[in-house]
Amino acid sequence: MTPPDNRFTVTYDIIADDQAAARGRAEAIALEQTVEIPAKLVPPGEIADEIVGRIDTLDPVGPQRFRAAISYRNDTAGPDFPQFLNVVFGNSSIKAGLRVVHLDLGPGLLAGYRGPRYGVAGLRDRHGGGDGPLLCTALKPMGLSNRDLADQAHAFALGGMHLIKDDHGLMNQGFTPFRERVEMCVEAVDRANRQTGLNCAYVANISGSFDKVVDYARFAKSAGAGGLLVGPGLVGFDCMRWLADQDDIALPILSHPTFLGANVVSPDGGFAHGVHYGTLQRMAGADAVIYPNFGGRFGFTKAECQDIIAGCLSPLGHLKPVFPSPGGGMTFENLAAMQDVYGDDVIFLMGGGLYERPGTLTDAVRDMRRALGQPVG
Amino acid sequence: MTPPDNRFTVTYDIIADDQAAARGRAEAIALEQTVEIPAKLVPPGEIADEIVGRIDTLDPVGPQRFRAAISYRNDTAGPDFPQFLNVVFGNSSIKAGLRVVHLDLGPGLLAGYRGPRYGVAGLRDRHGGGDGPLLCTALKPMGLSNRDLADQAHAFALGGMHLIKDDHGLMNQGFTPFRERVEMCVEAVDRANRQTGLNCAYVANISGSFDKVVDYARFAKSAGAGGLLVGPGLVGFDCMRWLADQDDIALPILSHPTFLGANVVSPDGGFAHGVHYGTLQRMAGADAVIYPNFGGRFGFTKAECQDIIAGCLSPLGHLKPVFPSPGGGMTFENLAAMQDVYGDDVIFLMGGGLYERPGTLTDAVRDMRRALGQPVG
Repeated sequence: MTPPDNRFTVTYDIIADDQAAARGRAEAIALEQTVEIPAKLVPPGEIADEIVGRIDTLDPVGPQRFRAAISYRNDTAGPDFPQFLNVVFGNSSIKAGLRVVHLDLGPGLLAGYRGPRYGVAGLRDRHGGGDGPLLCTALKPMGLSNRDLADQAHAFALGGMHLIKDDHGLMNQGFTPFRERVEMCVEAVDRANRQTGLNCAYVANISGSFDKVVDYARFAKSAGAGGLLVGPGLVGFDCMRWLADQDDIALPILSHPTFLGANVVSPDGGFAHGVHYGTLQRMAGADAVIYPNFGGRFGFTKAECQDIIAGCLSPLGHLKPVFPSPGGGMTFENLAAMQDVYGDDVIFLMGGGLYERPGTLTDAVRDMRRALGQPVG
Repeated sequence: MTPPDNRFTVTYDIIADDQAAARGRAEAIALEQTVEIPAKLVPPGEIADEIVGRIDTLDPVGPQRFRAAISYRNDTAGPDFPQFLNVVFGNSSIKAGLRVVHLDLGPGLLAGYRGPRYGVAGLRDRHGGGDGPLLCTALKPMGLSNRDLADQAHAFALGGMHLIKDDHGLMNQGFTPFRERVEMCVEAVDRANRQTGLNCAYVANISGSFDKVVDYARFAKSAGAGGLLVGPGLVGFDCMRWLADQDDIALPILSHPTFLGANVVSPDGGFAHGVHYGTLQRMAGADAVIYPNFGGRFGFTKAECQDIIAGCLSPLGHLKPVFPSPGGGMTFENLAAMQDVYGDDVIFLMGGGLYERPGTLTDAVRDMRRALGQPVG
């Protein structure tokens, strides 16, 4: 299955009436993603033999559904990550009934990617070790003052939360200026950490304008934030990759799924969940990947979430495994059952459930820890 | 229909069994895109009254299909374009059966956007005026040497082509180094322009890494390129917006649809074609928007393409109208019929059709001009 080291393989699911039609669609992908001219115009020799995608296998996998493994020479994707995405699914993303279900990447291609800086083990180290799930929540709602958001952060941190992120809708609006919010939330969480002796992190949303995102990230670092919330659907996958690679920033990155949904909601188009919320995110340097949990207000199934777990944790060359971070659908009643599904290498993200809980936010976090069998301070 | 000047309106199509279910989904959008907490937890006062999205209308538009107009206060989208996209369709993009079909943006919101620098009139001025369609082609296939690509560019330009772009798969690979390609293609097109007296432009693909895209753009400018090819699906919509805004770059921008397909291929999810390939592109500064034409190897319908025409050319505050640029499906036989559909404000993009034509590429361009009733040098 492993491609020769100068090629990588993309597996596509293809909707087609029969094997011959599927073959035709697979051949079209192999051309579209590379030379983008009809087969009869492809120059013979290296371009026809090496540059055009190569159909390695094509098999039926269900009614009117076929699976094609197509390999591409590594250097067609060049050194730029956007060009890799371009070869994987650029124009073919516009064709209905084609879905990327797997990426098989050899060490030659992966050598160009540092991948997650922290990953599962690194994040555990930052948050006091332990083997169980980490806990994450979000500051909300949009419209609160930064003072109120920081007070929330303090209360969450006191209860033993590991990661407290901005809601992804908190950016640099007039009612929640970015720099002030970061400074206030860092101070509030630091103050709680001094009280608890724990190491809770405030994770700042930096998913702003192209010309500001680096400044936002550097400011968050200098102010003492413990992580960055990045929406690759908003700022681009390669922006996240670049941020992860910077030694002078060096903060854990939580990836947020906002504005990426269309890539997975069609069962016949876009990307399989494990590729989109696993493999691509690791190439782009995420240390934890937020996505909508099954059973919540989004439509992901348990099987799709298990595909994400595999995408986050399965071997991927030298790229570290990262935390799947399901959000939504978590209740105090089902947390233990969720742990049975997810195991220990997971970051449980609970927002609304904590805010709804009677009592203080600190008490709510303690109840969340109890539900997971974690010690309560 | 025009919202008060401190709000903008997003119209969503909602798949639901009945009006009550549609109302529930609309209310969920209004919360999800702003405060992201259940209605019962929303603080009364300004947040409940102003920040939460406001459902202005909700009407059935087809079997199990409803249309909701939901308005948001402008400052929820703040000054960062990514945050505008976040409010429009951030998390809701992950819910199946929701589609953004229209944006109604008042001058208050649009004031934050310069929009296209050239647009239809500006591009016409650069390419010798005239009222008819402009012609565009692409250098290909991937794998050719830069010398061969530049020779193609020279031949196309001699025939009277207006815009010659890199194929979107030509980036900075080892077999086609970016800087060398730009220099060679600029020289080849300039040489042809001196022969013809015309003003053909070479359009360089700069859709590379986050940390290189600005350097690529500035290099293209300094080398004398006549435009930039930008894939917002690869580099982000706001990167394109930023590039368009830079007075020291000031090159026309052709937007390419690569890697954006999943946003439109599901009829019930993502974005209507006119929003995605019209409104958003103009906010992001594109002067021309490339997309797959109906009748070609992609599945867009004529009605979807007409929606794109409207999105590119309809009034949008102070933002200039821009060229729709259909590609694929264009033949010498149907060009005249295509002109009947598109009118004059269009850039016809023909790639494979020109390469397939017997004779030289220069002759093929002349035939294309003849098919459109344009003078041949």
